[in-house]
Amino acid sequence: MTPSQATPTQITLTPIGTVVGGRTEPIDDDWDAVEATIELDAERLGADSTAGLEAFSHLDVVFAFHQVPDEEVERGARHPRGRSDWPKVGILAQRGKGRPNRLGVSTCELVRADGLVLHVRGLDAIDGSPVLDVKAHFAEMGPRGIVRQPDWSREIMRGYWVDDASA
Amino acid sequence: MTPSQATPTQITLTPIGTVVGGRTEPIDDDWDAVEATIELDAERLGADSTAGLEAFSHLDVVFAFHQVPDEEVERGARHPRGRSDWPKVGILAQRGKGRPNRLGVSTCELVRADGLVLHVRGLDAIDGSPVLDVKAHFAEMGPRGIVRQPDWSREIMRGYWVDDASA
Repeated sequence: MTPSQATPTQITLTPIGTVVGGRTEPIDDDWDAVEATIELDAERLGADSTAGLEAFSHLDVVFAFHQVPDEEVERGARHPRGRSDWPKVGILAQRGKGRPNRLGVSTCELVRADGLVLHVRGLDAIDGSPVLDVKAHFAEMGPRGIVRQPDWSREIMRGYWVDDASA
Repeated sequence: MTPSQATPTQITLTPIGTVVGGRTEPIDDDWDAVEATIELDAERLGADSTAGLEAFSHLDVVFAFHQVPDEEVERGARHPRGRSDWPKVGILAQRGKGRPNRLGVSTCELVRADGLVLHVRGLDAIDGSPVLDVKAHFAEMGPRGIVRQPDWSREIMRGYWVDDASA
């Protein structure tokens, strides 16, 4: 059986909420300055679905880059952010939003949980983004062992969370 | 406008690949001993989509807990792993697979990339799991600031990656 036969054709998801507030345009940097809310859908989640969430400082949020049009989805390789001084690498070797399935995964600070309204800081998703999952951040879910990554990936992240005047 | 009006009704995704090998049952512990492959679908991705990926030691993988039936999806609160000695917390405050949209997000080691076949270690997804995204792991995407989490969440992760004889 080839992988394509084993792979289900489609998976249909229903957003559990929406990002409200924060940025309306996907600017690439200084995201930790941005506060927003995740408004969870009471038709999809019980009031107690966020019970105990405030015991965690951070959340892992899965969301859709819903404004990326089909023609901007890369299925091969490209220069990250179009920068030809960085290597041309595969779309899976980068974090850009123009990727198959247009899914974002981001770790942000949970400022406060008000029932089904989560106040967050540093979520790099624009206003209106459909939220597909919210998970309490467990430190143990991070990488085991030493993390190795190329220089360009370090460089691209300078200034991403905190404005870096030297960048 | 209420959140439920702002939220798109549905988002349809097409898996980009499949987990092949590793475990066939979702056992809760000792996952770092498990090796598997992610077989990417050549109809969805170009051969160069993984170019440069081996410069990264780890991957963030988004996959579907495809074997969880509807009736096991929790929309409120429950005891993690059914353990009544741990607090009853909301499904968003835990990482269990019986969650709305049944999405898993996991960071694993990339052992080797053979074109569209990724050899991984420590991916806590069973054989046959549909893969929705693979992202190079950037250390900078982790939490900024101090991570705080409750004691039960530390306890549940003992032995999850490495067999812990004292657990």
